[in-house]
Amino acid sequence: MAVYTDVGDDELRAFIALYDIGEVLSCKGIAEGVENSNFLVTTEGGNFILTLYEKRVARHDLPFFIALMEHLSKNGVACPIPVRGRDGIALRELRGRPAAVVTFLAGMWPRRIQPFHCGALGAALAALHRAGASFGMTRPNDLSVTGWRRLYETCRRRAAEVQPGLADELDAELALLEEEWPRDLPRGVIHADLFPDNVFFREREVSGLIDFYFACTDFLAYDLAVCLNAWCFEADGSLNVTKARVLLDGYRRGRPLAADELAALPLLARGSALRFLLTRLFDWLNPPAGALVRPKDPLEFLRKLRFHRGITNLGSYGLDA
Amino acid sequence: MAVYTDVGDDELRAFIALYDIGEVLSCKGIAEGVENSNFLVTTEGGNFILTLYEKRVARHDLPFFIALMEHLSKNGVACPIPVRGRDGIALRELRGRPAAVVTFLAGMWPRRIQPFHCGALGAALAALHRAGASFGMTRPNDLSVTGWRRLYETCRRRAAEVQPGLADELDAELALLEEEWPRDLPRGVIHADLFPDNVFFREREVSGLIDFYFACTDFLAYDLAVCLNAWCFEADGSLNVTKARVLLDGYRRGRPLAADELAALPLLARGSALRFLLTRLFDWLNPPAGALVRPKDPLEFLRKLRFHRGITNLGSYGLDA
Repeated sequence: MAVYTDVGDDELRAFIALYDIGEVLSCKGIAEGVENSNFLVTTEGGNFILTLYEKRVARHDLPFFIALMEHLSKNGVACPIPVRGRDGIALRELRGRPAAVVTFLAGMWPRRIQPFHCGALGAALAALHRAGASFGMTRPNDLSVTGWRRLYETCRRRAAEVQPGLADELDAELALLEEEWPRDLPRGVIHADLFPDNVFFREREVSGLIDFYFACTDFLAYDLAVCLNAWCFEADGSLNVTKARVLLDGYRRGRPLAADELAALPLLARGSALRFLLTRLFDWLNPPAGALVRPKDPLEFLRKLRFHRGITNLGSYGLDA
Repeated sequence: MAVYTDVGDDELRAFIALYDIGEVLSCKGIAEGVENSNFLVTTEGGNFILTLYEKRVARHDLPFFIALMEHLSKNGVACPIPVRGRDGIALRELRGRPAAVVTFLAGMWPRRIQPFHCGALGAALAALHRAGASFGMTRPNDLSVTGWRRLYETCRRRAAEVQPGLADELDAELALLEEEWPRDLPRGVIHADLFPDNVFFREREVSGLIDFYFACTDFLAYDLAVCLNAWCFEADGSLNVTKARVLLDGYRRGRPLAADELAALPLLARGSALRFLLTRLFDWLNPPAGALVRPKDPLEFLRKLRFHRGITNLGSYGLDA
């Protein structure tokens, strides 16, 4: 969430008048995230989030995301609910961009991750996967193994600007992952980007999940591997085994992991680390024009990737052998 | 308003617990403005603005600003009201910065200025000046004529980077303004920065004034000169005489202008144009580290300055001779 596109008072008033949520009282651009322009809109009906989808989100994917949030919220997942206009339409256009109004979720994302956060996250992720099982639409994960090489090729020549020798290491890693990536694990709807800033808490409970704009159909255990990378490492680059165990236990209580899913975990975690390394590398080398946020350090994920590469048994994630 | 300093969920919860406004439900950084870090905080008590004062606002000035907002709101001016904690204190500290919570104002600032906005603005400015007359504190305007040379000296050598010959023109202008600046016009509390993004409207009415962090004691007519520059010029650099007339008429209905104030208007407008030219020039040459906003064009105010320099009679502002 950032602000790439300004919305004027007149056009906002006209836009919000299409909904049954009362007069606009206020609209503030939100200084968070990187993908879309987000505004906190207060109306007589309460607080809402207005999102203008910028070019990184493909227009043809939006019906999937909107329908997914509607489906999940109907199935007990606390997430933003797309608000339909008086005409029944949830996805429309504003300032030449696709735009949607969604409900506002109470809660704050945790800055200092503690084990209880990871346990609650695991349970919420399992609940998301269960609720997603009855969702009728699919969307390929274009940021999984089949998409990495194309992304990597756009950065490969300049990888040394970030760290000498980086290209050699990534060449080898990518070749191995393409060769050994699992073909047959349980699949379903995954969030695919469940970092702490996408998970709201009230007290010690998850109060909502946001930002479904990378959601897709993929291995469910891959979502868990993303969370392992996003939640369980300390600032010094070491894995906090307690957090990993609590995350995995929390998940398994909601959705048991099969033996092949467990066995694939280190490889899925390497893949997930590479995915964020590559997108951050791309953003580092090509900062989006007009972005009001600083690019994130790609090398954080190189260190995580190396950690998972060294895993010889699942005890390293806090699991019993 | 921008976000220079992040506030974590734990520290925010602890901070808000000092007030009697309920549990924090959400906190979003606001992507607007340039001076301070601002957050829209939703609690069980409603929406509030949390401001962390960054280094551009002098700590010793804060009691003036807080007391001024309290005074004005008690005297009928719609503006943010500082919220006092359970201990009676409104100004405290968060993340090593002075911080305050103020009430949230409904309304949006106008992007496309129409004459009715200028009329309502004039009336609101006069009401502000009237309410300020009973305010007991004073604060010198360090961005008026006595402060310009010091600011200019920090930019003078590099002025040509922005426009060739700029230094020569500003040398002459500054010398003239220092010589001819009025000494004895009606004084009082002025806002000193009443640009459109600091004035909220609902429908055609002003619903509130914000951002009092340049407020000071100075010529009341200087505030009007700031508004003339901020509201009455078109994008092509020309003055819209209708807007100027409506602004001045709206003001005079609420507070009549004396003959010497009217006569000084072109000079005050030149001074006000120079003031914004200089601060923008400074920011252009020294963009604040970590600012998530782009610096504004200083030359916009050079064009305005030149316009006012050419004024030979007040008819150019839409006033009768």
